[in-house]
Amino acid sequence: MNQAPDFRRIALIAKPDAGEELRATLRRAVEFLDRRGLAVCLDAHAAQALARDDGLPLDALGERCDLAVIVGGDGTFLNAARELGTHDIPLLGVNLGRLGFLVDISPDAMCATLGEMLDGRFEEEHRFLLSCRVGDGPACLALNDVVLHKWNTARMIEFQTWVNDSFIDTQRSDGLIASTPTGSTAYALSGGGPLLAPSLDAIALVPICPHTLSNRPIVVHGRSRIRLRVSGKTDPAHVRVTCDGQVTMEVAHEQEILVQRHPRPLRLLHPAGHDHFQILRTKLGWGGRQD
Amino acid sequence: MNQAPDFRRIALIAKPDAGEELRATLRRAVEFLDRRGLAVCLDAHAAQALARDDGLPLDALGERCDLAVIVGGDGTFLNAARELGTHDIPLLGVNLGRLGFLVDISPDAMCATLGEMLDGRFEEEHRFLLSCRVGDGPACLALNDVVLHKWNTARMIEFQTWVNDSFIDTQRSDGLIASTPTGSTAYALSGGGPLLAPSLDAIALVPICPHTLSNRPIVVHGRSRIRLRVSGKTDPAHVRVTCDGQVTMEVAHEQEILVQRHPRPLRLLHPAGHDHFQILRTKLGWGGRQD
Amino acid sequence: MNQAPDFRRIALIAKPDAGEELRATLRRAVEFLDRRGLAVCLDAHAAQALARDDGLPLDALGERCDLAVIVGGDGTFLNAARELGTHDIPLLGVNLGRLGFLVDISPDAMCATLGEMLDGRFEEEHRFLLSCRVGDGPACLALNDVVLHKWNTARMIEFQTWVNDSFIDTQRSDGLIASTPTGSTAYALSGGGPLLAPSLDAIALVPICPHTLSNRPIVVHGRSRIRLRVSGKTDPAHVRVTCDGQVTMEVAHEQEILVQRHPRPLRLLHPAGHDHFQILRTKLGWGGRQD
Amino acid sequence: MNQAPDFRRIALIAKPDAGEELRATLRRAVEFLDRRGLAVCLDAHAAQALARDDGLPLDALGERCDLAVIVGGDGTFLNAARELGTHDIPLLGVNLGRLGFLVDISPDAMCATLGEMLDGRFEEEHRFLLSCRVGDGPACLALNDVVLHKWNTARMIEFQTWVNDSFIDTQRSDGLIASTPTGSTAYALSGGGPLLAPSLDAIALVPICPHTLSNRPIVVHGRSRIRLRVSGKTDPAHVRVTCDGQVTMEVAHEQEILVQRHPRPLRLLHPAGHDHFQILRTKLGWGGRQD
Repeated sequence: MNQAPDFRRIALIAKPDAGEELRATLRRAVEFLDRRGLAVCLDAHAAQALARDDGLPLDALGERCDLAVIVGGDGTFLNAARELGTHDIPLLGVNLGRLGFLVDISPDAMCATLGEMLDGRFEEEHRFLLSCRVGDGPACLALNDVVLHKWNTARMIEFQTWVNDSFIDTQRSDGLIASTPTGSTAYALSGGGPLLAPSLDAIALVPICPHTLSNRPIVVHGRSRIRLRVSGKTDPAHVRVTCDGQVTMEVAHEQEILVQRHPRPLRLLHPAGHDHFQILRTKLGWGGRQD
Repeated sequence: MNQAPDFRRIALIAKPDAGEELRATLRRAVEFLDRRGLAVCLDAHAAQALARDDGLPLDALGERCDLAVIVGGDGTFLNAARELGTHDIPLLGVNLGRLGFLVDISPDAMCATLGEMLDGRFEEEHRFLLSCRVGDGPACLALNDVVLHKWNTARMIEFQTWVNDSFIDTQRSDGLIASTPTGSTAYALSGGGPLLAPSLDAIALVPICPHTLSNRPIVVHGRSRIRLRVSGKTDPAHVRVTCDGQVTMEVAHEQEILVQRHPRPLRLLHPAGHDHFQILRTKLGWGGRQD
Repeated sequence: MNQAPDFRRIALIAKPDAGEELRATLRRAVEFLDRRGLAVCLDAHAAQALARDDGLPLDALGERCDLAVIVGGDGTFLNAARELGTHDIPLLGVNLGRLGFLVDISPDAMCATLGEMLDGRFEEEHRFLLSCRVGDGPACLALNDVVLHKWNTARMIEFQTWVNDSFIDTQRSDGLIASTPTGSTAYALSGGGPLLAPSLDAIALVPICPHTLSNRPIVVHGRSRIRLRVSGKTDPAHVRVTCDGQVTMEVAHEQEILVQRHPRPLRLLHPAGHDHFQILRTKLGWGGRQD
Repeated sequence: MNQAPDFRRIALIAKPDAGEELRATLRRAVEFLDRRGLAVCLDAHAAQALARDDGLPLDALGERCDLAVIVGGDGTFLNAARELGTHDIPLLGVNLGRLGFLVDISPDAMCATLGEMLDGRFEEEHRFLLSCRVGDGPACLALNDVVLHKWNTARMIEFQTWVNDSFIDTQRSDGLIASTPTGSTAYALSGGGPLLAPSLDAIALVPICPHTLSNRPIVVHGRSRIRLRVSGKTDPAHVRVTCDGQVTMEVAHEQEILVQRHPRPLRLLHPAGHDHFQILRTKLGWGGRQD
């Protein structure tokens, strides 16, 4: 039980491909929040789904609102988190479709659960985002992972990795995943990385199909500065950096890729009784049948 | 010790980027073979390196010659094997640079080793090639592997796999490696596949970064027909099929990818006393320090 | 559809811990086979469950009967297969409890399925057993695996492996699993081994927690002679060899462990339409959710 | 550069099997420390090696001395660390034999390096120990790992794991490794665990040969309380708990195993310029050849 929160202005953020289920869910959310006397602001996708023209950019929602309700899948949540990550606004997720690690409120229970959470019965959890810069370009945030990967080629790439001032290795592989604990259930897991407890202050560096037998995932401090540099043998045209599988950046010759923890934590709200490992078992079949 | 072979016409095949070491090695090989009264035919790269204009296409060398000597790295050998794979010509490899699994004769020992092998002191080994067809396109051969992989996207692809008439699974991943025993020390190993004894009549199917925890490499018969089909959710523009990391093919909507063993075995010649596992330990550090 | 089989004398073999379900299943089987005019012979466990005193040793059943019906789990089947492996008798398995790879007939469908199989509607599959000898001791068979493992110690053991006359490596680990294709879904899978298609003529050598980063499972020919030798640094009292997780043998100083394919194939009968990969997906959750 | 340390009384701790190299190394150390006017106290093994009778128990050394110099291998260091872990004494390690992660000073450079370190030119690093209790038995410390494992059986064991109050899973496997960052280069790595940066405040839980495909290593907070409970299906006589591979404890029926971080950090001293990843590359061949 948290102290009475002061959520007055609620942002409703939706996934882009509007279908009937999304529309109905958004309508119920708007009605419910109206009845509680709360102001509701929509993002562009939610406005479009409801045939309204007052959709706002995510950045504006982050400035104005006290709480963001994201309706969609983990992909919608990741996108919103990157955009809202520079604001001090808590997020909660309603899953259309399958249960997600980030969108853990079911549409059926949405109004009841939202009601309880607005009354203060929620669990607040802090996750961190990664910030990635290629050369002196702008920072791109990532809630799951920053991935250096080959592009447009069937061949391996070669690159060096440093953690703070320690040289780690020269690696020939398909790439490297720098993953937050949040991302440890996503692409990093596919690459053979370990699961990280959600609130661990750590970054996993997971090689993708490394050429040598002796490479392994390595877990470093959340406060580490991770620097990657494509080696001279690899044409930078065959390399890209991608944040959360959603934003892809080019890498020019001699550019360093810098990955580090974003200073502002992301505030996630979960319904009371939230159990990360329960979702893990349900969603990933983790640990096999528990009968 | 084999019965006296009848190698009269020797093809010399070289890697493309001609340097002084390649030139010197080729010159020594030509002189040595001349002295033994054997006819020497060059491929285009060998001819270029020796500033001659009588280079022949690999296909013509396969028809005319009794033995192919390949000077370069494993990549040069793979390329030659695919081109010569439809002919009944044995191959041997001289490594410029690092020892390779396929190019296992060192330049220093080249003439002495060649002499012994021409006298019949060699070990002949049969490997198989894979043949891959996309839709009703032409067959492409592969000595290492046929890889279905994502292209030009940071997202996973989805596809189905059948072995003969058995449905295997619907997989979301970065792709799938169908590897020969020869290829089991190459990309398949990076993907977490097992080592296969070189003469095993088997194909390894190795998922690349599979989305689910429960996927594993599977080893099937060499005579299996492996069929892959990209699912409707994946844009075929984001999929490619690559043979030996060298030849890349597009996949159109609804096209099936068929992978099966090429009927003609590839004949590899090794110096007497060749030891595959010795190379494995040396080259991959397999088994760690053996002290 | 097979040609009309001549199954006249049926062996009924049961798991040891007799409960009501086992008793009822055996009774139904006996009645059904009686009605078809077939002779039924029981093993000791089946006899005990039915309160009869005419139970026979497995070896005697293998000599006298034309078909063995095994009622229990994969463990019961493994035990029977090792004992019957020197006879030319086909086996089929009825699963009490969970579906197994070897016991793939459900008790509910038992009589209908048995009827169809006795009419010739079955699929016969050949698997191979491993034969293991420690020093010049007696051979022990294994349908799943022969495992060299540490015993009664928390420390690693050290041993050498040869395949035919090729030295593979000196390994420090918790042990080594030599697995048939049948066993590739069992302990070998836990150790990180690949799945092998059931009829592949191959043996997987899977290291258990190897000390070096560079060790990997290796798949060799079914006809390979695998020799293991505990190194002088390891006290043989801290080593055991176990077949199918069921029969454990000591290893004395300087004794070699020889593992090779048993010459007589094991005949498995499956109901028509049997699909190994379907069981794999159901039982192991292989490939994740296939929705 | 640290502020001038006040190391007046130095403990010399040696590995048990005294050979000439150990004797010579200890003699040089004693002479060197004498010349610098420092008091030297010996443990029982060091005293025995020097044919002296003034050896003290490790616990007494921890109370009296300001610095412990450990001469041997990582095993000697682990043993000393567990015994000294309740005292506030820094440790440094001189490796006889191979370079170790913990014993990183070579005997050749010992006196020069010790001299520099006594002058304050060293790097101090804090590692943590795990504390393990079986039931209400005494706590046993571990610098590398606490391992729950099968004992005296070829079969799997079954147990439940909780982290704080979260249920993780019911696991059937050969056991579970709870590893510190220090231990992440040891047995946990053999079991497929990730490398953890040495100063990370985290514990890796690595399953040993888990029965299901979907199990993975998981990394949790260093401050987590990890509780393990053997399930009713497993005979406790077939289970042991081992600390650092050196101290083994029995588990009785219904006893819970509690693993948590020991409150007092272990102080390790390294020569200036110490580079953990350099040792990793050298010792484990990590990242393959770096040429």
